[in-house]
Amino acid sequence: MEPGPCSRPAEPGICVSGSPGAGSAFPASLPSGAGAEPGSRPGTVAAVLPAGGCGERMGVRTPKQFCRVLERPLISYTLQALERVCWIKDIVVAVTAENMEAMRSIIQRYGHKRISLAEAGATRHRSIFNGLKALAEDQPDVVIIHDAVRPFVEEDILLRVVTAAKEHGAAGAIRPLVSTVISPSADGCLEHSLDRAKHRASEMPQAFLFDVIYKAYQQCSDYDFEFGTECLQLALKYSHTKAKLVEGPPDLWKVTYKRDLHAAESVIKEKISQEICVVMNTKDEESAGHLLKEVLKKELNVVSSDFQEIQKFLSTLEESGLPLLYPVVVVLVHCCDLTLAPLAPKMESLMWIRSLAEDMKKRNVLLSGLLLNYSKDEQKLQESFQQGASIIAALVKERSSALAGQLLLA
Amino acid sequence: MEPGPCSRPAEPGICVSGSPGAGSAFPASLPSGAGAEPGSRPGTVAAVLPAGGCGERMGVRTPKQFCRVLERPLISYTLQALERVCWIKDIVVAVTAENMEAMRSIIQRYGHKRISLAEAGATRHRSIFNGLKALAEDQPDVVIIHDAVRPFVEEDILLRVVTAAKEHGAAGAIRPLVSTVISPSADGCLEHSLDRAKHRASEMPQAFLFDVIYKAYQQCSDYDFEFGTECLQLALKYSHTKAKLVEGPPDLWKVTYKRDLHAAESVIKEKISQEICVVMNTKDEESAGHLLKEVLKKELNVVSSDFQEIQKFLSTLEESGLPLLYPVVVVLVHCCDLTLAPLAPKMESLMWIRSLAEDMKKRNVLLSGLLLNYSKDEQKLQESFQQGASIIAALVKERSSALAGQLLLA
Repeated sequence: MEPGPCSRPAEPGICVSGSPGAGSAFPASLPSGAGAEPGSRPGTVAAVLPAGGCGERMGVRTPKQFCRVLERPLISYTLQALERVCWIKDIVVAVTAENMEAMRSIIQRYGHKRISLAEAGATRHRSIFNGLKALAEDQPDVVIIHDAVRPFVEEDILLRVVTAAKEHGAAGAIRPLVSTVISPSADGCLEHSLDRAKHRASEMPQAFLFDVIYKAYQQCSDYDFEFGTECLQLALKYSHTKAKLVEGPPDLWKVTYKRDLHAAESVIKEKISQEICVVMNTKDEESAGHLLKEVLKKELNVVSSDFQEIQKFLSTLEESGLPLLYPVVVVLVHCCDLTLAPLAPKMESLMWIRSLAEDMKKRNVLLSGLLLNYSKDEQKLQESFQQGASIIAALVKERSSALAGQLLLA
Repeated sequence: MEPGPCSRPAEPGICVSGSPGAGSAFPASLPSGAGAEPGSRPGTVAAVLPAGGCGERMGVRTPKQFCRVLERPLISYTLQALERVCWIKDIVVAVTAENMEAMRSIIQRYGHKRISLAEAGATRHRSIFNGLKALAEDQPDVVIIHDAVRPFVEEDILLRVVTAAKEHGAAGAIRPLVSTVISPSADGCLEHSLDRAKHRASEMPQAFLFDVIYKAYQQCSDYDFEFGTECLQLALKYSHTKAKLVEGPPDLWKVTYKRDLHAAESVIKEKISQEICVVMNTKDEESAGHLLKEVLKKELNVVSSDFQEIQKFLSTLEESGLPLLYPVVVVLVHCCDLTLAPLAPKMESLMWIRSLAEDMKKRNVLLSGLLLNYSKDEQKLQESFQQGASIIAALVKERSSALAGQLLLA
């Protein structure tokens, strides 16, 4: 399924990048193709993630980068997105002293690789500077700065900002403004409104030649350390480097409010719901399996049709002992003509699914049983398949551990 | 439950404002209390909702205001939020000619009141002007302008902008900037970045003295009609009125991208999950009901403890024939000691829930059955209650129609 670490799919899937020994397979330098200047020297690339914020806008106590999405801390998704990119050599995360231990256990639990920790400063800029200092000894050519709370960063935009930074010294992702920006007067009235077409929101990731950004931070005033919000501005002010602005995709948005956590969860659920595995167990298996797959195609966007491959993948996973980064939904479908066999004993005979599900839940696998009425009446059969497909789609989409272990009926 | 139309709760609930005859109970003028200037003349207030956009940023064909959230078009939530405020006399929605019929059927289906329709223009400003023209004959003192895609507007912020508009002629909600705003040069490089502390995002709702905004639109240039994005700016430019800026809550955000639809759905699900109804059916009813309620309190934020009241409310609803604006989750809980009675016949005896659920689904009620193992073993009993509570919480939170009609086991 995953031929090698470099060709891993851009969308989240079951991550196996933490597999032992895989680290050595990552090339240490930036690929020279895909948008890079012809003949430009391949350079080493590292990334710094300031993660010292307290998430006050979220309205919850846990800093937002540690809030859980599908039971896993948000920052783990961001780390996964970065470590999936094989040419990022080193990832420095700046966390507060009090969260250092929690961060270490996240790295261990989810098998993250190529991560170093630095201590966060009192402000975002101080945290980034600390991250850069950690890289100063074995300094990379280019450094990416990204937010811990932007989990959906793709390789494409990372490559584009890095390539632009190599050419211009600095580069950053931008997005169109969603709201008009206005400037208030001292008494809280409208002074003027900015022309929306002439302005952009500055987002992350950004990338810099290491010298450019390190020099900027070395010269940075206390005022800028305290109140500045924009790394590109520091590069301009202190290193006289005009950043190249790169139009980014909408997925780069920053998880800021509680509703953004919900949105992030939905985006992740949608992405991981594009591969499903249906295990049939009946003598009518082949035709029923085919019929169910056809109906499921309408309910879910993409259905992986190669069940064998997925089963092989699950066995490999089982043997490797790697952590599952997302809850995996498994639905055991049983077909049975309920006009020939009474329902109650059939259901009772499937009660083993309940105890098996309890075990599997501990391994982050959500197992459910589905009893499908395989009627001889064509219309009833179609209804059963339709309902069965809707149930499977709901289980896959909701991914609710509370509903695992049930025996459902269609 | 709902003493009168004016005291309706601010959070979405089961809306009954469309009840016949309720319209006459709405006072036609703004209450003079709550933040209004002492002695200020009560004025009439109307609202204009431009809803002619095509939602290109959403990446779906349906304009975003018509996208469905829990099976109901987004604009219906926004209309509900406005019509819940009794002192808003008239709500004009500007929709394109091709969506006029769809809009009429939404108004009818969800029982919206006090709505008039105007035809949308080619741009947002032209749509708003058309909405104002529809009010010109019987003109209100103050007009609120709001977006169809900001469904979570509360009475408090509406009152604050209206009160400020009465004093200053114009007022609008603002929010802190989430991203730094930058100004790009012609060659796509950073020209300068704006001081985030000195700028704000202009949001909705806004409010104006009718004369101020109507005069502004009457004088508005074609260029501003085409490319302008800010009503407050028009009031400043053409009516020389400096708008008062009012800090709004984070919930005012505009549903712009597909992820915002997910976020909106989660916000709505969370709000409507704060009242639940558990119907018990066993001789152990009282103690089991009490125990389950206690465990549920930990699983769900708020549990309405007065089941009778909710049952009465459901009967009233049944008699009134009003549409349910949100899917209602009903869980029939049956307790049974499975060491005394075999499971299979018990489950079979409850199969009537399946057909009842099919009927109720058509009325937007999601019925499920829960068989709870009422064991004499204290620890097993606690486990059953815990699992039962988790299942109920998941059903209430997910509100999935595909999973209704199932008999679940705890």
